[in-house]
Amino acid sequence: MQKVNVKNKFDLFQDYWSPKVVGDLNDSHIKLAKLKGEFAWHKHDNEDELFYVIKGRLLIRLRGEDIYLNEGEFVVIPKGVEHLPVAENEVHVMLIEPKSTLNTGDVLNEFTRRDLDRI
Amino acid sequence: MQKVNVKNKFDLFQDYWSPKVVGDLNDSHIKLAKLKGEFAWHKHDNEDELFYVIKGRLLIRLRGEDIYLNEGEFVVIPKGVEHLPVAENEVHVMLIEPKSTLNTGDVLNEFTRRDLDRI
Repeated sequence: MQKVNVKNKFDLFQDYWSPKVVGDLNDSHIKLAKLKGEFAWHKHDNEDELFYVIKGRLLIRLRGEDIYLNEGEFVVIPKGVEHLPVAENEVHVMLIEPKSTLNTGDVLNEFTRRDLDRI
Repeated sequence: MQKVNVKNKFDLFQDYWSPKVVGDLNDSHIKLAKLKGEFAWHKHDNEDELFYVIKGRLLIRLRGEDIYLNEGEFVVIPKGVEHLPVAENEVHVMLIEPKSTLNTGDVLNEFTRRDLDRI
């Protein structure tokens, strides 16, 4: 059985907004992503999404509320809630969400990623 | 929406082997636990279980293999796999597993906890 060292995994890729699968947990994927800049407003109609900050500081904008996540902090964005991740500087996050989740949710744009790499 | 600072949450309890619920993620709970000493061999017939070490060093014994998890490392114990967590010194872990999961799996003993506290 293979353990995962999260920080070591982040050394294996550099591209932003392109989640990598690092584990399977029941019906969910455990993913790592590097973020920088502003993503796009979206929501996931059927999936809650965990954002856990491993490094850096992530702003998650909601309609009417801003949440700043520092290292060691997480938030669960419930299904159906519009959100916009913003990383002023590079941020490393762990994401846990159902395997059915598309990164841009209900929106298709230049950030959309299908068939995620497994590292 | 409430973010969670993991290390601050660990300041709120001291008991060992008694997971606290800190979040809901689809059909799963996000839990925190302090571990010290040796647990009991058990398995979860229907649920994969994530062990993510926040602090300390955790040994997870499997039948025929030992896995040492250091801070920032995780492993997913697949459903049906017998395991025995051992914490020589105090360990802080995050657990993510279906809400149906009983901490001692297929075994009932003095470690069994139902109706977990939410912190």
